[in-house]
Amino acid sequence: MSAWIDEAYQGIVRTGFRLKRRLFKGRSPFQTVEVVETAGHGRLLLIDGMTMVSERDEFVYHEMIAHVPLFVHPRPRRVLVIGGGDGGTVREVLRHKSVERCVLVEIDALVVETSRRYLPRVAGKLSDRRCEVRVEDGVRFAAETRERFDVVIVDSTEPFGPAKELFGPKFYKDVRRILTEDGLVVSQAGSPFYEIGTVRNLARILKPIFPVTDAYLFTNLTYPGGLWAFAFASKGPRPVKDFKPARVKAAKLPLRWYDADVHAGAFALPVFLKRALGR
Amino acid sequence: MSAWIDEAYQGIVRTGFRLKRRLFKGRSPFQTVEVVETAGHGRLLLIDGMTMVSERDEFVYHEMIAHVPLFVHPRPRRVLVIGGGDGGTVREVLRHKSVERCVLVEIDALVVETSRRYLPRVAGKLSDRRCEVRVEDGVRFAAETRERFDVVIVDSTEPFGPAKELFGPKFYKDVRRILTEDGLVVSQAGSPFYEIGTVRNLARILKPIFPVTDAYLFTNLTYPGGLWAFAFASKGPRPVKDFKPARVKAAKLPLRWYDADVHAGAFALPVFLKRALGR
Repeated sequence: MSAWIDEAYQGIVRTGFRLKRRLFKGRSPFQTVEVVETAGHGRLLLIDGMTMVSERDEFVYHEMIAHVPLFVHPRPRRVLVIGGGDGGTVREVLRHKSVERCVLVEIDALVVETSRRYLPRVAGKLSDRRCEVRVEDGVRFAAETRERFDVVIVDSTEPFGPAKELFGPKFYKDVRRILTEDGLVVSQAGSPFYEIGTVRNLARILKPIFPVTDAYLFTNLTYPGGLWAFAFASKGPRPVKDFKPARVKAAKLPLRWYDADVHAGAFALPVFLKRALGR
Repeated sequence: MSAWIDEAYQGIVRTGFRLKRRLFKGRSPFQTVEVVETAGHGRLLLIDGMTMVSERDEFVYHEMIAHVPLFVHPRPRRVLVIGGGDGGTVREVLRHKSVERCVLVEIDALVVETSRRYLPRVAGKLSDRRCEVRVEDGVRFAAETRERFDVVIVDSTEPFGPAKELFGPKFYKDVRRILTEDGLVVSQAGSPFYEIGTVRNLARILKPIFPVTDAYLFTNLTYPGGLWAFAFASKGPRPVKDFKPARVKAAKLPLRWYDADVHAGAFALPVFLKRALGR
């Protein structure tokens, strides 16, 4: 069989995975949600035709979006994940014993249901007793909740469609409000190669709102160009200088990508990205 | 126009670039050599259908293969590049004022000629007075030359076809022989995601031959999976502990990727790769 599932990006590049079979395709009020089985990358979850998760390498993204902030915060107990309805980020957050409560706010019930059904190794921990899944608008949740969180993780799709407001200043002012004293936030921030504007805009939005801002990188197989950025912002803790490598070693988490070396290395930004961020 | 030039890899993944026009296709005794103009990545050089160079991001690979070893060696004067007939590595090597002589040994004249003609910004420095281009087998050159080099850079294609022997122990024993006392070698080592065996085998080959061995990573747009590895081996200098960040700052090279932070960060290997390398 020779079918491919291709994701074109900006009209100039495409990534294709060899298809074994299509498992599910549905449409919610927000987007199309699709699961396929591939020959070499396990199952893929696609939203509006863009690969969000591949079973083969989702560990990279999920370890990096969760453990970097959770090992920078001195003692994370309450964590909010906005987006991330596939559950991979929650799975990683819950590896931290200090975490008492993890709220997942996903706008699209279909993402959660589909992931639970077709990607159980990713979504399985959404049923953990410490996790509350809320199907609602994350922007509104941040504006209205009275809860406070030590860490907020913005695990969103690209900055258009339902995720658009997650890349705006109003949202990040609300995030600051709902963060505890040492609180911090990380956000999916786009491709340094292909969307330097997204990375830069997010940095510009965060800078006047938080005393500490930074960015860090990872590489996976499924996002165009491989290299991808997260934005980091906090009310105090600095991502490398206040990071304690010994805590990572002591925690002995069963990870495949993240460790203390990788943590520090991820903040070593290439020259062109430093420049774009005004350093 | 909607044509794509696709590179399939291991039959499970493919990367496609939007094509503007085909500029050249030729066949040497070793391989096919092709140049195309793309809509978003400038010109590409392909060998046997595999993208070797894209104008948009070749700076990443070439800066990382050249400046890491040249800033680890205390004073590189004589440099040997094996493969790399496109000239990008030589261009970066010659940015170092200490370099008096750079020998490029490329087995395939067609790669050199094609790059000179179609990729002048990559190949231009092959005409520098400090550079000697030799069209011959790099394996044989390493076995027979009486010259000695401070740094050897193995800028090869994948470990099959004409490059096969560049991934064997006999070749690396010859490299050790032709290296000066503090000499070191770096080599293109494959994809940690897709060819962990290549990365591991090269590490195993180097370990009994050199007292210091390591690996480092970079990400570009054109190699499958984005993330790619270089092997590092030396007769003495350690790649991070003996590296002097101040030298990078003082050199003020006009680079877009590499700086002292990136140097150190590149040696922070993810957990699964550390394990594969037996750490």
